[in-house]
Amino acid sequence: MEAFSDGVIAILITIMVLELHVPHGTELADLRPLLPVFLTYVLSFVYLGIYWNNHHHLMQASNRINGRVLWANLHLLFWLSLFPFTTGWMGENHLATAPTAIYGAVALGAAIAYYVLQTLVLAEQGPDSLLADALAHDVKGKISPLLYAAGIGFAFVIPWVSVALYILVALIWLVPDRLLESRLRALPD
Amino acid sequence: MEAFSDGVIAILITIMVLELHVPHGTELADLRPLLPVFLTYVLSFVYLGIYWNNHHHLMQASNRINGRVLWANLHLLFWLSLFPFTTGWMGENHLATAPTAIYGAVALGAAIAYYVLQTLVLAEQGPDSLLADALAHDVKGKISPLLYAAGIGFAFVIPWVSVALYILVALIWLVPDRLLESRLRALPD
Amino acid sequence: MEAFSDGVIAILITIMVLELHVPHGTELADLRPLLPVFLTYVLSFVYLGIYWNNHHHLMQASNRINGRVLWANLHLLFWLSLFPFTTGWMGENHLATAPTAIYGAVALGAAIAYYVLQTLVLAEQGPDSLLADALAHDVKGKISPLLYAAGIGFAFVIPWVSVALYILVALIWLVPDRLLESRLRALPD
Amino acid sequence: MEAFSDGVIAILITIMVLELHVPHGTELADLRPLLPVFLTYVLSFVYLGIYWNNHHHLMQASNRINGRVLWANLHLLFWLSLFPFTTGWMGENHLATAPTAIYGAVALGAAIAYYVLQTLVLAEQGPDSLLADALAHDVKGKISPLLYAAGIGFAFVIPWVSVALYILVALIWLVPDRLLESRLRALPD
Repeated sequence: MEAFSDGVIAILITIMVLELHVPHGTELADLRPLLPVFLTYVLSFVYLGIYWNNHHHLMQASNRINGRVLWANLHLLFWLSLFPFTTGWMGENHLATAPTAIYGAVALGAAIAYYVLQTLVLAEQGPDSLLADALAHDVKGKISPLLYAAGIGFAFVIPWVSVALYILVALIWLVPDRLLESRLRALPD
Repeated sequence: MEAFSDGVIAILITIMVLELHVPHGTELADLRPLLPVFLTYVLSFVYLGIYWNNHHHLMQASNRINGRVLWANLHLLFWLSLFPFTTGWMGENHLATAPTAIYGAVALGAAIAYYVLQTLVLAEQGPDSLLADALAHDVKGKISPLLYAAGIGFAFVIPWVSVALYILVALIWLVPDRLLESRLRALPD
Repeated sequence: MEAFSDGVIAILITIMVLELHVPHGTELADLRPLLPVFLTYVLSFVYLGIYWNNHHHLMQASNRINGRVLWANLHLLFWLSLFPFTTGWMGENHLATAPTAIYGAVALGAAIAYYVLQTLVLAEQGPDSLLADALAHDVKGKISPLLYAAGIGFAFVIPWVSVALYILVALIWLVPDRLLESRLRALPD
Repeated sequence: MEAFSDGVIAILITIMVLELHVPHGTELADLRPLLPVFLTYVLSFVYLGIYWNNHHHLMQASNRINGRVLWANLHLLFWLSLFPFTTGWMGENHLATAPTAIYGAVALGAAIAYYVLQTLVLAEQGPDSLLADALAHDVKGKISPLLYAAGIGFAFVIPWVSVALYILVALIWLVPDRLLESRLRALPD
């Protein structure tokens, strides 16, 4: 299951780059209109990198897969598969309300899907597992959906606040969580 | 062989999303014309998820691969590879006869190809295998082709009945088959 | 190395299907112009399936990989990566000379690249290996380049003979080679 | 982690070929405008092949992965993911300054990202590891960024010198490094 998910995320990351259309001109200035698409691509690349990273750790900690976990995983991949679309739409429309809100909505959908997947894996592992222990203080997983929801709301008022909130979520996850990592490192590889 | 098939299905799932073209407008209303394409995408995503899931279980239960199984597998992947095309065609044409019938024909082709693959794997395993036992009452596998065939027929009369039948097949497979799962769980991972 | 090659071939197979553009009309007749592209797709799908199958057996028999084998493998993947292009060009131009000749030229390039890869793997294995024994009577591998070369030549005179020769090569490889298979089956999986 | 990286590189290699648009004409002469795109594709294919090859050796020598290595790896994949874009832009504009400079800039970014990744893996392994020993005389890794930087500079004066330098880097890496290879071969597979 991990190989399949890795494959889907790898393809999504590379398909997003297709939204960076080769410009017709040959000047450096011809790249300027691509800048917002490029920056949105960077943001989505970081998001998918975070999901791949976390998904990797979650699956490493999980040794029993049942049908519900399989479908929760596909549900997560479904939301991630919409990233190339929302990345392209938000990137081509500088801070317009609808694309900014939809970008947040898909990010929120993915965050909820990840939470559901994590909960089902935890249920399989039992409350005394190392994973349950490591995730006991999962602050990031609880704050992220709230920040996405706030971002969706701000899109209708001041869209650049939404984008700032989306970037904030990425930064929160990029900061290494030493506690989680050190505990998961104790698990067999 | 499983890694290769997983790769193909993962790529097909993500290539389908390319049919969701980024709209030119920036209003939520600009997403409305995409709705049928999106819903068809959801349906095809579920189909490919089901095939991936079942294929995974089938390969897990199989430990001897010969040339005929390899080609039966490629035959299945061939039919699945046509899903992005039929998804795009049916999604862009609200309940038109030909796209609806062709969608069902490709789904029927994939169902038959899966049945052939399953039969060849079973032949390798022998009639006393756990897999043979688990698949003895394979009602879903026998009903699905009939529902697809009915869907193709209805496309020439009342196309929305076809789509309802295609959705019905997906729902039948989504309902967990506890018996099969519990028996396969007894197999070595 | 096998996983990487599997990945490339899996992606090539699915990228080829993108040449099947969704038609604008909604009639079955609107599919007719797609028929040559579709048939070319089927032919190329079978070719790539054959390469995946043979490559799989070759790598299974090989347990020592050096730098030259790695690059011979990439060289093969390079020629295979041109199949989506030649498939699209030949498929859209009914039996025109240049696309038919170029299709054969790329197929010939891939066949030669496979021969080089096989020779390097054999050199690693030594003349007394099971693989050397199994490939001693590799008639298919020697006839295929000749048939491709003949196909390239006929493209300038009677192009449909070229296509017939290309199909003939595919059929030759689809017929199971019981001898090779039975000998390779003796190898550890 | 290696499977994921292999997947991304495999997809990038095959996505690049999509820049080779099927021509409208049917004459061999219709391929002539594609020649610069084709040659740029060959160069980028070789680059990605080299990265895959080196990455493979690096990961083989590494047995402990931490969060920083994961992100250094994603950082490398980010730069590699821009190759299809720069390949398309440089290929379509014969020796224009900006595309040639940007091609070099992305190549330089990837080279630096690889160097960072290598340094982090080395830090995990310790100064007495076989890898540290093998990379002690890593001349190629130090010369390449300098050649890319020179290429970027020449793009503003004589662009064909830039392309010659980019080709030179590829050739340097294609020449087998017997010393590194023989030492790494001593590692467990």
